[in-house]
Amino acid sequence: MAMPLHATFVGGATGPWQVDRLTAVRGEDLPVVERLSVIEGRASALLATTGWTLWGVTSNERYVTRAEHIVLVERQPPLGRPEATRAALIPVRKTDQWWNLSQDERRAIFEERSRHVSIGLEYLPAVARRLFHSRDLGEPFDFLTWFEYAPADAEAFEELVARLHETEEWFSVEREIDIRLVWDAETRRRPL
Amino acid sequence: MAMPLHATFVGGATGPWQVDRLTAVRGEDLPVVERLSVIEGRASALLATTGWTLWGVTSNERYVTRAEHIVLVERQPPLGRPEATRAALIPVRKTDQWWNLSQDERRAIFEERSRHVSIGLEYLPAVARRLFHSRDLGEPFDFLTWFEYAPADAEAFEELVARLHETEEWFSVEREIDIRLVWDAETRRRPL
Repeated sequence: MAMPLHATFVGGATGPWQVDRLTAVRGEDLPVVERLSVIEGRASALLATTGWTLWGVTSNERYVTRAEHIVLVERQPPLGRPEATRAALIPVRKTDQWWNLSQDERRAIFEERSRHVSIGLEYLPAVARRLFHSRDLGEPFDFLTWFEYAPADAEAFEELVARLHETEEWFSVEREIDIRLVWDAETRRRPL
Repeated sequence: MAMPLHATFVGGATGPWQVDRLTAVRGEDLPVVERLSVIEGRASALLATTGWTLWGVTSNERYVTRAEHIVLVERQPPLGRPEATRAALIPVRKTDQWWNLSQDERRAIFEERSRHVSIGLEYLPAVARRLFHSRDLGEPFDFLTWFEYAPADAEAFEELVARLHETEEWFSVEREIDIRLVWDAETRRRPL
């Protein structure tokens, strides 16, 4: 995807996603809300009358090689599959130490030592994923990762999260919130 | 620098930098203005009553290796040297084709084939530089690069710009504006 796509995640009292649980995995927590909306673009913080808004932007790839990109594109499903009625929003902030590393050092931790892409590939095409960058927008988190999967794949998704928490890369995470969601709206999910 | 630093470049009728020339090197031009201010943070577009504002953010390094980083940090001068009364602001937008390349392909063009870092190193410590990213902010340019140098180094700076225009990387540039500036204020320049 060449053009950056902005999205705002609005946690509050309304929205088609019902919050199943909201856990501070590491660092400061985030207020618990009942429901979540995902809005294209930068929505006003005023929308979250009772909760919070988090804002991010898709961007160019930062670590993946062409060879890895080809395999990912071949296997990864689109967002919005009708059967993908479970979702996770996982906001993460990494340490200053991570950001002060050079590109080759971050890449080595990310893939050569932590196998971030290789592990993720094992859960395709079950889990759809979109990464939003927030750090350069002055937001409290560096990344907002959005995942979608079917109820039957919920256990596999738990395993994926657990495996990523065992990697060297995860030592660079200083704040992580895990928000699990269930699609709960009159309308069926439709492919985007 | 671990924390992202936002800055707004305001082109208009006021400001300590006098615009010596403003040239569209490639692609659509930008209105000519008389003066320029550099403001920390995101300043309102209303400030530019007669011109334009461009907004960017410093970010983590994207291509440079640790070995290159060490040499750069050792040689690069700070911004704001009293003798550096000339500056250049060079907003650039790259092609969609560039942004669709994977990280290893962009790195190969950037340094292995175009020697972007190596060429730049030859002009240190004469030329101070700070790169601001704009693409993910929804701005019309992808990068705003700010350079500062003394009048005696103006010719060397022209040579640096000309050499970068001869590289393979520059084929990925679809819009480039070259704005040259002269410090013209009552106050002397002070180190930041």
